[in-house]
Amino acid sequence: MEVDLKSFFEPQSVVVVGASATPHKSGNDVIRNILANEYAGKLHLVNPKGGKILGINVHKSIQDLPDGIDLAIIILPAKANPQSIRDCAAKGIKAVVLAAGGFAEVDEDGETLQRELITTIRETNVRVIGPNTSGHTSTPHNFTSSFFPLGKIPRGSISYIAQTGNFATHTMRYIMSGENFGVARVVGLGNKVDLDESDILEYYWKDPETKAIFVYLESFKRPRRFLEIAREVTRVKPVVLLKGGSTAEGAKAAVAHTAALASDDGIIEGALKQAGIARVHKYSHLFLIAKALAAMPLPNGNRVSFLAPSGAMLVCLTDLCEQALDMSVPGVEETTRRRLQEISPPFIRMRNPVDIWPCATVRGVEYAYREGMEAVLKDPNIDAVVPILMLTDDTGVPPFDFIVELARRYPEKPVYVTFSGEKKHMEAAKAFLEPKGVPTFPLIEDPFEILSVLDQCRRAMKRP
Amino acid sequence: MEVDLKSFFEPQSVVVVGASATPHKSGNDVIRNILANEYAGKLHLVNPKGGKILGINVHKSIQDLPDGIDLAIIILPAKANPQSIRDCAAKGIKAVVLAAGGFAEVDEDGETLQRELITTIRETNVRVIGPNTSGHTSTPHNFTSSFFPLGKIPRGSISYIAQTGNFATHTMRYIMSGENFGVARVVGLGNKVDLDESDILEYYWKDPETKAIFVYLESFKRPRRFLEIAREVTRVKPVVLLKGGSTAEGAKAAVAHTAALASDDGIIEGALKQAGIARVHKYSHLFLIAKALAAMPLPNGNRVSFLAPSGAMLVCLTDLCEQALDMSVPGVEETTRRRLQEISPPFIRMRNPVDIWPCATVRGVEYAYREGMEAVLKDPNIDAVVPILMLTDDTGVPPFDFIVELARRYPEKPVYVTFSGEKKHMEAAKAFLEPKGVPTFPLIEDPFEILSVLDQCRRAMKRP
Repeated sequence: MEVDLKSFFEPQSVVVVGASATPHKSGNDVIRNILANEYAGKLHLVNPKGGKILGINVHKSIQDLPDGIDLAIIILPAKANPQSIRDCAAKGIKAVVLAAGGFAEVDEDGETLQRELITTIRETNVRVIGPNTSGHTSTPHNFTSSFFPLGKIPRGSISYIAQTGNFATHTMRYIMSGENFGVARVVGLGNKVDLDESDILEYYWKDPETKAIFVYLESFKRPRRFLEIAREVTRVKPVVLLKGGSTAEGAKAAVAHTAALASDDGIIEGALKQAGIARVHKYSHLFLIAKALAAMPLPNGNRVSFLAPSGAMLVCLTDLCEQALDMSVPGVEETTRRRLQEISPPFIRMRNPVDIWPCATVRGVEYAYREGMEAVLKDPNIDAVVPILMLTDDTGVPPFDFIVELARRYPEKPVYVTFSGEKKHMEAAKAFLEPKGVPTFPLIEDPFEILSVLDQCRRAMKRP
Repeated sequence: MEVDLKSFFEPQSVVVVGASATPHKSGNDVIRNILANEYAGKLHLVNPKGGKILGINVHKSIQDLPDGIDLAIIILPAKANPQSIRDCAAKGIKAVVLAAGGFAEVDEDGETLQRELITTIRETNVRVIGPNTSGHTSTPHNFTSSFFPLGKIPRGSISYIAQTGNFATHTMRYIMSGENFGVARVVGLGNKVDLDESDILEYYWKDPETKAIFVYLESFKRPRRFLEIAREVTRVKPVVLLKGGSTAEGAKAAVAHTAALASDDGIIEGALKQAGIARVHKYSHLFLIAKALAAMPLPNGNRVSFLAPSGAMLVCLTDLCEQALDMSVPGVEETTRRRLQEISPPFIRMRNPVDIWPCATVRGVEYAYREGMEAVLKDPNIDAVVPILMLTDDTGVPPFDFIVELARRYPEKPVYVTFSGEKKHMEAAKAFLEPKGVPTFPLIEDPFEILSVLDQCRRAMKRP
């Protein structure tokens, strides 16, 4: 039973019910967001006062609206939500986003109201995202229902399913200001009275705009259905999941957050793995891994090469890969080794991982990293390359074009950049490289932790 | 048998043997470093050419030097090192730093040379740091023997023992430019032909300038001695260790780096734990945990409170604490809970961890975090507090003085700041808070990982 979510992700015309003329109110911010994202469809507004808001005519009621509207965003107090849904249904609007909180996540009255909402949905056959959602986003259609001021959301290939409002609020702001990647679709699930993670996952499965799927959940509404769909999706795209509430204490916090009930974590762990889902345990990984996947392909294996200006880093990162991350730091072909030896002073025996310091000291930072990276990128034993750039005033800071160029010439192998040196140069490298499609990470361990998760995704795609 | 390391850490007069007039050569950079650090003792230079370097008279040989010099920094090719030591000994210089590489870490000739060095040291009774060291630093005495351009190294309470040159080169540059904390002593051990990690640890033990000790090792020269000393040190100060080469592949990299032979990791693990050492597995932790300890006290327990503007963060971080980090996110006293409830809109039931969003939305970001933080800082069940600051243009960015003020008023409880929001505001908060003694961390998981390691240190100090 596939749900048609086209009205949510590709609406031709939408209405904001509860539109507000007052700046900084949700009913106003949502309009600004829609305009900022250059929504090309028709935008209607409803407010009993009528008049104009931001230059747009306001209808006094849902009844007054023209026919043929795809989607309603309802920003009204919780109690008004069931009637609004009935009004929408009467007007032929079959898709609704409910922003209001104040349902099962707060108290018994809220629970009662939520039950009424569910009954109304069943009676009207209207499909609903929410309530208690901060909205959803669909950049390929220049549309968002978020009421948190976001401005123009950058388009990209990453899609989120989140049982939290964060990916339509602060975390999106952080991604936009700090991580330089774009999104395709984002859904804040809210209380999931109707549409749930399984429905959205199913849509993302076939969605050509979605290259990788990141999921934050505190509960599974239909666990079997979710796993059933995930088993198929993970054969064609990475699915990375963070399950909140996997401890007793965390579950208590989850009840306060979205009224979600915890499931037994041990059962979940095995089921997710079987379904090919890569599970993570850090919230930050939801954007760091997304950034890596947005810019670069999924690696073809778990064999990494890295170039560091420090023996200690070579040693520690090899330990980390082999011990904690299930990554391999393999030997390279003899031709590769010879090339590495050729560019380096003779006193050091070159291998993978690559000690780039002697070469960089003698022949300059740019030459060392360029030639060293190319040698290992060419090697058939290597699936991904991590240069740890040495960047100090004294050793010189190279122009970074050569890294962009190398990443383009070896498109099947991810290149993730990290650093050793001065902060200002790290920031400059990030500002240069990321808009050109090469992701950077401040801490040297990050790229390896990310590659380890991506390798789980790759294995899921390759499974029989 | 305690070694007197005063000549290394508090030298009254030093000589650079192999002083160079050529900028960017090690024999020149080391002089610039000594001058930049405002060394107050007497500085002598030796170079067969004589003349003046950077305004300082140059002696033509060690023999020509005046008597009574405490320490020699020898920056000469490997082969010249044994004779230099003999010359120093003849001149009454009993402490020497050997910068040259080209010993056992490169080839058989180097091994032979290293054996000669060891014999010379035994015959002369000169004490040696190195060879193959990038130097050592002692900020309370405004001194460094590092030949990597560093400028003035900020003074602080953290001391490093490192079997890598990085803490006198790139990592120190990163700490200086990116992490806003100072160091007391730093020793790059190099090949450890004489002084080793046990000697330095013993010195740091009684050193009033050293509040916490961070160690990077690829091998233990005298494992039993090291553990014996560590058992005592860890009763009075935190000792955090990263052991490189703990996997077979990592060990191979370590052989290439410092000719260190790996020990069995399983044996090491138990022994370190018994000795009260907190073991870490990430290189980055060597400066992130140091930063936390430099600014704040060791927490009195593992009970953390945190304030987040997102239910998902409350849930995920609680999971992380309880599941992976052995940290507790306990309930608070009824008076604390009442205070939290008082500042918050009534629709949310307040607890620890603290959902600060409703309060911040209604009463402003500054009020919410200030009153929320104070409530949990006061609570006897809480040992450390982590505010996850919501910082966006729209919700408003508060002045950050109130955090500095709260940290001062509750000096026994660490406060680590992290963020949710826009990057520019995070950077501004970091730039404001860190120089005033409040450490910040870009990723929300960092403070909790750090607190977990610090709790191991605390338990070591409390053991019978």
